[in-house]
Amino acid sequence: MKILILNGPNLNRLGRREPGIYGTGTMDDCLANLCAAYPDVEFAYAQSNCEGALIDRLQQAADDGTKGVVFNAGAYTHTSVALLDCIRSLDIPVVEVHLSNVHAREEFRHKSLISAACRGVIAGFGLDSYRLGVEALVKQ
Amino acid sequence: MKILILNGPNLNRLGRREPGIYGTGTMDDCLANLCAAYPDVEFAYAQSNCEGALIDRLQQAADDGTKGVVFNAGAYTHTSVALLDCIRSLDIPVVEVHLSNVHAREEFRHKSLISAACRGVIAGFGLDSYRLGVEALVKQ
Amino acid sequence: MKILILNGPNLNRLGRREPGIYGTGTMDDCLANLCAAYPDVEFAYAQSNCEGALIDRLQQAADDGTKGVVFNAGAYTHTSVALLDCIRSLDIPVVEVHLSNVHAREEFRHKSLISAACRGVIAGFGLDSYRLGVEALVKQ
Amino acid sequence: MKILILNGPNLNRLGRREPGIYGTGTMDDCLANLCAAYPDVEFAYAQSNCEGALIDRLQQAADDGTKGVVFNAGAYTHTSVALLDCIRSLDIPVVEVHLSNVHAREEFRHKSLISAACRGVIAGFGLDSYRLGVEALVKQ
Amino acid sequence: MKILILNGPNLNRLGRREPGIYGTGTMDDCLANLCAAYPDVEFAYAQSNCEGALIDRLQQAADDGTKGVVFNAGAYTHTSVALLDCIRSLDIPVVEVHLSNVHAREEFRHKSLISAACRGVIAGFGLDSYRLGVEALVKQ
Amino acid sequence: MKILILNGPNLNRLGRREPGIYGTGTMDDCLANLCAAYPDVEFAYAQSNCEGALIDRLQQAADDGTKGVVFNAGAYTHTSVALLDCIRSLDIPVVEVHLSNVHAREEFRHKSLISAACRGVIAGFGLDSYRLGVEALVKQ
Amino acid sequence: MKILILNGPNLNRLGRREPGIYGTGTMDDCLANLCAAYPDVEFAYAQSNCEGALIDRLQQAADDGTKGVVFNAGAYTHTSVALLDCIRSLDIPVVEVHLSNVHAREEFRHKSLISAACRGVIAGFGLDSYRLGVEALVKQ
Amino acid sequence: MKILILNGPNLNRLGRREPGIYGTGTMDDCLANLCAAYPDVEFAYAQSNCEGALIDRLQQAADDGTKGVVFNAGAYTHTSVALLDCIRSLDIPVVEVHLSNVHAREEFRHKSLISAACRGVIAGFGLDSYRLGVEALVKQ
Amino acid sequence: MKILILNGPNLNRLGRREPGIYGTGTMDDCLANLCAAYPDVEFAYAQSNCEGALIDRLQQAADDGTKGVVFNAGAYTHTSVALLDCIRSLDIPVVEVHLSNVHAREEFRHKSLISAACRGVIAGFGLDSYRLGVEALVKQ
Amino acid sequence: MKILILNGPNLNRLGRREPGIYGTGTMDDCLANLCAAYPDVEFAYAQSNCEGALIDRLQQAADDGTKGVVFNAGAYTHTSVALLDCIRSLDIPVVEVHLSNVHAREEFRHKSLISAACRGVIAGFGLDSYRLGVEALVKQ
Amino acid sequence: MKILILNGPNLNRLGRREPGIYGTGTMDDCLANLCAAYPDVEFAYAQSNCEGALIDRLQQAADDGTKGVVFNAGAYTHTSVALLDCIRSLDIPVVEVHLSNVHAREEFRHKSLISAACRGVIAGFGLDSYRLGVEALVKQ
Amino acid sequence: MKILILNGPNLNRLGRREPGIYGTGTMDDCLANLCAAYPDVEFAYAQSNCEGALIDRLQQAADDGTKGVVFNAGAYTHTSVALLDCIRSLDIPVVEVHLSNVHAREEFRHKSLISAACRGVIAGFGLDSYRLGVEALVKQ
Repeated sequence: MKILILNGPNLNRLGRREPGIYGTGTMDDCLANLCAAYPDVEFAYAQSNCEGALIDRLQQAADDGTKGVVFNAGAYTHTSVALLDCIRSLDIPVVEVHLSNVHAREEFRHKSLISAACRGVIAGFGLDSYRLGVEALVKQ
Repeated sequence: MKILILNGPNLNRLGRREPGIYGTGTMDDCLANLCAAYPDVEFAYAQSNCEGALIDRLQQAADDGTKGVVFNAGAYTHTSVALLDCIRSLDIPVVEVHLSNVHAREEFRHKSLISAACRGVIAGFGLDSYRLGVEALVKQ
Repeated sequence: MKILILNGPNLNRLGRREPGIYGTGTMDDCLANLCAAYPDVEFAYAQSNCEGALIDRLQQAADDGTKGVVFNAGAYTHTSVALLDCIRSLDIPVVEVHLSNVHAREEFRHKSLISAACRGVIAGFGLDSYRLGVEALVKQ
Repeated sequence: MKILILNGPNLNRLGRREPGIYGTGTMDDCLANLCAAYPDVEFAYAQSNCEGALIDRLQQAADDGTKGVVFNAGAYTHTSVALLDCIRSLDIPVVEVHLSNVHAREEFRHKSLISAACRGVIAGFGLDSYRLGVEALVKQ
Repeated sequence: MKILILNGPNLNRLGRREPGIYGTGTMDDCLANLCAAYPDVEFAYAQSNCEGALIDRLQQAADDGTKGVVFNAGAYTHTSVALLDCIRSLDIPVVEVHLSNVHAREEFRHKSLISAACRGVIAGFGLDSYRLGVEALVKQ
Repeated sequence: MKILILNGPNLNRLGRREPGIYGTGTMDDCLANLCAAYPDVEFAYAQSNCEGALIDRLQQAADDGTKGVVFNAGAYTHTSVALLDCIRSLDIPVVEVHLSNVHAREEFRHKSLISAACRGVIAGFGLDSYRLGVEALVKQ
Repeated sequence: MKILILNGPNLNRLGRREPGIYGTGTMDDCLANLCAAYPDVEFAYAQSNCEGALIDRLQQAADDGTKGVVFNAGAYTHTSVALLDCIRSLDIPVVEVHLSNVHAREEFRHKSLISAACRGVIAGFGLDSYRLGVEALVKQ
Repeated sequence: MKILILNGPNLNRLGRREPGIYGTGTMDDCLANLCAAYPDVEFAYAQSNCEGALIDRLQQAADDGTKGVVFNAGAYTHTSVALLDCIRSLDIPVVEVHLSNVHAREEFRHKSLISAACRGVIAGFGLDSYRLGVEALVKQ
Repeated sequence: MKILILNGPNLNRLGRREPGIYGTGTMDDCLANLCAAYPDVEFAYAQSNCEGALIDRLQQAADDGTKGVVFNAGAYTHTSVALLDCIRSLDIPVVEVHLSNVHAREEFRHKSLISAACRGVIAGFGLDSYRLGVEALVKQ
Repeated sequence: MKILILNGPNLNRLGRREPGIYGTGTMDDCLANLCAAYPDVEFAYAQSNCEGALIDRLQQAADDGTKGVVFNAGAYTHTSVALLDCIRSLDIPVVEVHLSNVHAREEFRHKSLISAACRGVIAGFGLDSYRLGVEALVKQ
Repeated sequence: MKILILNGPNLNRLGRREPGIYGTGTMDDCLANLCAAYPDVEFAYAQSNCEGALIDRLQQAADDGTKGVVFNAGAYTHTSVALLDCIRSLDIPVVEVHLSNVHAREEFRHKSLISAACRGVIAGFGLDSYRLGVEALVKQ
Repeated sequence: MKILILNGPNLNRLGRREPGIYGTGTMDDCLANLCAAYPDVEFAYAQSNCEGALIDRLQQAADDGTKGVVFNAGAYTHTSVALLDCIRSLDIPVVEVHLSNVHAREEFRHKSLISAACRGVIAGFGLDSYRLGVEALVKQ
């Protein structure tokens, strides 16, 4: 079973970026934990600051046998109709995750453009949000 | 470890209410599964159609040693400032859950008044949303 | 044939509350007239100031063989998503009625949250609105 | 007793227009039923696709001894301030009716400009809405 | 002279709930002080987390000779049209009070639905707001 | 010098329509006064309840040597983009007049769609508004 | 094959009306060109300043064997729900055309009420918009 | 008969300020013309850039026997609730005038806060707006 | 102990201005009563129609040993960010008072710009609002 | 004559993406048809999921002798001010095309940011929209 | 070369007012530094809490040979249409400056009414904003 | 001292793009002038039409010892939450600059999403805006 963990803009600096909000853990730790917890799952990981590159990567996942995507779209969550269209056009489930509870932050982070096309939403549990996203994909 | 599963209005008819949206599973099944999966957790369950009774139950949880709440506030999610105030006034973590992906439904279900006071949000995984909520409470 | 007449908040004071708007007739008069006009119909009547109790009563009607509900939700008409969800989850027709023409009053009374789930709407004919509501249920 | 049944734009095609929403009954059936049910009432009927012609007809009713109007303004319900002004300037009661439950349809059909000047509103009972409108006029 | 002190949702936890905002004083202290300061006034006190129960209590006050109400509706201040209708239907003056200066807090607390029906508003003086409310009732 | 006095919907009932707002004077009186006051001006008068007929009449004025129009568009003032386009397409000045001070009435009468294409606006002086409109056309 | 070219308000003055925006070509030129370019198509042409007359003409087209309509609704594009209802009730395709690029003009011209019921939209190519509209009908 | 001509901010530079919009005429010319045209009227004139000073002057007019005010509030038209309150508190009629047609300019000039308290509004006739305002006061 | 009573625009006409809303009492009466009721307090009083002069007076109070301000900003309450900034910049408490219950009046009076910087708000008790404001300052 | 056909995000999956909305035709078919229909036109084709790459390609077209662009910006139509700026800065005409009638879909697809800078808009004719776009460019 | 440094409401307390936001430097320091840095420039300085007085001062600058204005309008930035009109009516360049980054503060400080009439805007550099404003005027 | 000058979309065509708004100067001239004026500063320059590439470049600057950034984000200023997040996550100051006074242009250019994370904003001085931005960084 193949699962893609996909991160959007600025998440390459996780652990260094505003640790008060995002914590000090890194994606390396997170991925190591996932591999340990789900030995039967083959994980792919990608990150890009570019909206178009994220679309490319999601389309590729739909073509290479990936069974599901755990997707933290970062700031593009709130501005990208193109990602909404992309997710809607794919046949594989995408789970939207966020590190922080976006509803407890600025007003413009309360609106997600991509949620309507995703299987579900998990937000507010730090790096554990990724694990819960994988859990949701594996069990369904 | 004591966890409260709390359901708001109309959720007493789960399995009978619009199965196309909410599925045919019942809370009894769900609770049985939770007890099996988390033998070390003591689960309490409550449901009410009344906003005030839900506040009463949350306040009681804060006083009886409950370690966390998995809360599906149903329609009150979108209208109740009183539940927001209540959750904010408690010292125990509350995880907001929804059966359906509220962002893929009517506009007025996109806004949650209570999210800002909750530890995190999980939506869209049917009855599995409750399990992921418990998972999030247990692991932190 | 069983029909429930259900009244929401403050309607227990009908005849005493702002007679300039709501008239001086009472629900007792109204119910007596209904029984006389429709001898073949068995009427049940309930009133509550509590949103949750109205949901309880509607759910009960769906289970006890009631054929339809004439419902004046009072002020909850404009604020309750929970009543909308409740009506939508039932298999029996609900006719929304209002004593006054809500469109000729304050702006916030122009919007009904529950109309979308009701069979139809009748407003502005004083206590006669209830009779027209029963008439609509009986003839269909 | 003289009552005018007045229909606005596109209602001349009733029975042929989107039967899924408006039903297959025609105004001829409806009027025949009304005449049978209310033998003491003299019914006049008029329809126009033109906003100005509807105003002309309402003004004429006020001058020719008509006792009340059952008015389905169709789409002009949502856009015509001129009809609002017209109804307000007349001394005879006008009951606003709609075939469908406008609140269960598109957003822009939720707002009625003319309701504030009408005696009351009846919506959602198909052609039976006209009968309920006549009933409301006759009994008051 | 009988005055009702009425508290809405979550105010039963005053002194324990977010003391940074609401202070550490309790309603017991407050009521004791009121009785001492106004020996000629007979005070009644009630609290409920339920919107409908608050309406019940206000209606009862109008019937039992109470001369005025000092009402802290808590979060229902911002969402309840039913309480607005209730206060408007009574013949006794109601003074709206708040512990904190609601205008210095979140945006949604700036709007009071019930103010339009109240005699006046007093906000921002902690428990002393109740005393000022009584003072306003006694002197008029 | 030829001037057209043009009236929109419901103004054919001036003197009979809501005299509290519009006064008891009639257009006949008004036109007689204008002819007496401006003996050198040739007045034409027209009224229609139909938006399209008003456009027809304005276009005709532009072709028959009329030097200016005093136009009370009634309720179409607030809803007609077609009249705005029409006035903008003509080479003759149009003065917008209103009997009542529209800004002291309902919210939806505060917005005029046609003002942007008119030479000027005069509102609130009853039938004298027409005279001031003629005065403005004659003197420029 | 029969095609109706239908024009709304003020378009009878094309070539004379604001040539900077709408050009100096006339509908006569346009229709002559269409007849030459599509010898196998029978063209009908109609124009009216009256919303109701446009509805009448569209209904007639649906009954007389017309295969499609190229419709420039002029200003009614932005205000007429009645035309939207009319187009939706017909079984023949209607192509919405505009001479100018409405999105490069005033804000209120950006919103078309009728687009949702039309086969497609063509805007901004002057009189050539009509030819492209016919082209779209002929080729499908 | 005493009439006050009152000008608000920036109108002291009339004739020098954006002549394309406001013309090259000055208030001196305007006042001379008014004195010649209405020999029986005693005119007072005042201008201030300060909102408070305009209120002072209006209050003084109410106390010194002035029979009416022709008031161009300039930019304060769109922002001053204090001037609205002031005009409403006086017993003398105030006519609101504007040099330019404010509805043909920026959006924020379409809203007048003071109109609701004024006798009427005259806009768009350049300096002639003042004469029409005096005419309206003299004739009533 | 020194307390400043400060009044904004139009309040110099209290007792003469719309007595139906503001009552017939004058500030002289009010101040005399305050001096009698609080013999140990030294009262200063000021009024201005000018926003800038009110800022000057508040700044002076902060420098001359005044212990608190009871401030009725009148219409500037709803439009002045400058007064908000001023109050926020001072070290002395300011209590916002209003004669009438502003929430029961026009929509634009529901919003106070200055409340967020004030210690508390008292509204709706006529001239007694000033006394309650002093009471609140003295007791803290 | 050189024409660029340019496609935005997700359009590389045309024929595979939501065929119910977008049809099963592919861009390869479309381009082959264009080459056959317009033998004298040299067509270039490009697609990218990246907003910046689309800007790069448009700038290149302006420099390499391209005579016009038929541009389907996909989801960037509704979010990209940068594409608007880009099109406005070029000297060559750009025709905006859409496969589906965007006005018959979700609300957020009704607003196009780029239309204001385009020569015209063609929407709703499936792949035929591209041909009509080329037709519009060739004939002008 | 003469330059006016003009400050609006509350800026006379700079150095004493909320130093966390505005810093502890005073305008005296700032002006001394400007004189030292630009020995060839003659600086004038003025401050007022009154909107009207600021308009007076700007008009005077336009008449006394001042070459440019560096203007911190304080809170009037967000509320004054009169200052916008004033700046637009002058022939000399005005540079808008702010001490703090207004976009990082409350929502209502994000909107500047006067920016549209200013040469440019400089915000967020504390007292150095004034120097950059002078630099911009000197170099152009 | 190292400073990055960073330009967003379409700014690679500066001097060729709408010279009426943006001037005819080029970035080459601008950079040459900066190097001459600040010989002790080491300037880096980059431009991209791609939002993601701009984020990459900003992150790199934070890692390579750059002391500050002068950033003209072009159209992304108004749409990019991702750039806001990026700037906020860096430890180096970013000054937002614009060639034109964005507040004097279209409405949608009045809102900057990134301002809240920038040190300050400078707009409206053409290419001199870059020099003022460098000046602000050097002096602090």
